[in-house]
Amino acid sequence: MRVLSGIQPTGRFHWGNYFGAIRQYIDLQNEEASYYFIANLHALTTVRDKTQLEENTRDAALDLLALGLDPNKASLFLQSDVPEVSELCWILMTGTPMGLLERCVSYKDKVARGINAGAGLFTYPVLMAADILAYDANIVPVGADQVQHIEVTRDLAQSFNHHFGEVFVLPQAKLLDASAKVVGTDGEKMSKSYDNTIGIFEDAKAMRKKIMRIVTDSRPMEDPKDPETDHLFLLFRLFATPEALQEMADLYNKGGFGYGHVKKALADAADEYFGEFRAKRAELAAQPDKVREILGDGAAAARKQAGAVLRRAQEACGLMPA
Amino acid sequence: MRVLSGIQPTGRFHWGNYFGAIRQYIDLQNEEASYYFIANLHALTTVRDKTQLEENTRDAALDLLALGLDPNKASLFLQSDVPEVSELCWILMTGTPMGLLERCVSYKDKVARGINAGAGLFTYPVLMAADILAYDANIVPVGADQVQHIEVTRDLAQSFNHHFGEVFVLPQAKLLDASAKVVGTDGEKMSKSYDNTIGIFEDAKAMRKKIMRIVTDSRPMEDPKDPETDHLFLLFRLFATPEALQEMADLYNKGGFGYGHVKKALADAADEYFGEFRAKRAELAAQPDKVREILGDGAAAARKQAGAVLRRAQEACGLMPA
Repeated sequence: MRVLSGIQPTGRFHWGNYFGAIRQYIDLQNEEASYYFIANLHALTTVRDKTQLEENTRDAALDLLALGLDPNKASLFLQSDVPEVSELCWILMTGTPMGLLERCVSYKDKVARGINAGAGLFTYPVLMAADILAYDANIVPVGADQVQHIEVTRDLAQSFNHHFGEVFVLPQAKLLDASAKVVGTDGEKMSKSYDNTIGIFEDAKAMRKKIMRIVTDSRPMEDPKDPETDHLFLLFRLFATPEALQEMADLYNKGGFGYGHVKKALADAADEYFGEFRAKRAELAAQPDKVREILGDGAAAARKQAGAVLRRAQEACGLMPA
Repeated sequence: MRVLSGIQPTGRFHWGNYFGAIRQYIDLQNEEASYYFIANLHALTTVRDKTQLEENTRDAALDLLALGLDPNKASLFLQSDVPEVSELCWILMTGTPMGLLERCVSYKDKVARGINAGAGLFTYPVLMAADILAYDANIVPVGADQVQHIEVTRDLAQSFNHHFGEVFVLPQAKLLDASAKVVGTDGEKMSKSYDNTIGIFEDAKAMRKKIMRIVTDSRPMEDPKDPETDHLFLLFRLFATPEALQEMADLYNKGGFGYGHVKKALADAADEYFGEFRAKRAELAAQPDKVREILGDGAAAARKQAGAVLRRAQEACGLMPA
């Protein structure tokens, strides 16, 4: 299987990103071929600040590598380092019915939420299709909100193949494990828009402080409590060993504990869990040339594959080289 | 001044294309820098046939060179040979308000005429803006129907410059000489859609036959006629020397001539006019390698310029290289 994952560098990654997506992406790096790109061209639709986009991009690369993405197994690269994707985007655009884009829920949602309706957001699914088709990807791990875009990709690929001959591989969406959704510091889904996130690579002290300030209820200490409805417990579960988790659940069911105790256990467990990643990240951050080399090698591998697919597409529709 | 002209390879060029546009484009090749591209990426929105698009593209290159485009003065190349334009297209797309495209008359017209409303037609002005801005073009010769698209280009460039710093040169539209509009074989404007065209490079015999079949009125031979309202005369004017034209005008005003006489004079004059071009075209058609080399050199020159502009744009908005 050939796997493709794209990650938008729109800000620092938080626990929700990690357990809900990134960890699952990285688990797929052992497939026959796997491509991971930092979607800076997509991010440009919302991040309109040079320094911010550059920082986000560098951070995303460091984060992914620190979290276990192995450049010996997978290709990691910046989307903008593969011109073939932009070229393919236009070719696909010429075969994209307006209605297909108008029906995309994610565009309609953004407009409804008052986000400035730009042509970049509107045509976003076409660039996404180009990203996917450029690498002959069979498998694209996505959240439920992105499944419609994979359908658009399949539609565009099928219609092109039907008209011009077999050029594109039809991808399948692989739904991310939704049970891995992470609650935020307020018990809602962890999300930047709710301002309830804890960053993966926050400074250890800052992370502990944030955890200690997680809002809790004011039931008496001695009351037994249902662990499954308590967000502190749900967060603890992300990091705890099965034994530690059982012990904590027993404590909840029995009562007679303070939330401060749980917070401390959570902070310790998160520290333990991310400690190694944090060390790896610091090591990489001190070697910008090495990171650039990894991204450069990844882009070269990506361009080789994307170039082959682009030539197939150009040849099929009559865009001959001079 | 830096001049850019793009020509869509959507079919064979006719007298109307030549006098109304191509000849005027070619006249600009003596400017400081001039770029002429065969817009096969644009054509892909309507020509959905591999062989057709390839043929049209080859024909367009041969036609332009035969008609006097001098590769020593100007760069001639295929649009699809410059990846930087597709890359720039996406960058501009992220800053394009939907309303700007929705207001474009040419899109609305096409939809109104029942042409399939694709995202390619809709976003066409963004690719056109990329084409223009990629070469720092100051001057873009266009027909009146394209002036709005130059305004879109200026809007996108200004908005990018305002937000990210001075990157793009603002182009000016140079309106083609409208008096050079050519009437067709039926007296209407010469246009493929009216099926009243005479091709520049039609076989000499076929051209003569077409001319001899031009519809005329049935006024008596001996009547004097106003030359300015007769389409045969207007066509003759395209090719005649001032003396021959005056002679013919006198004949019209006096009366006592058959339209067959005018047709023959027109056919002779057109033959004379296009004879040299036709010979040049035959010569070039026999040297496909030479034409490919010209297009290759043109693309190299174009990419050098477009690459510099793309890097400026990427740098400005934070799309750093790995």
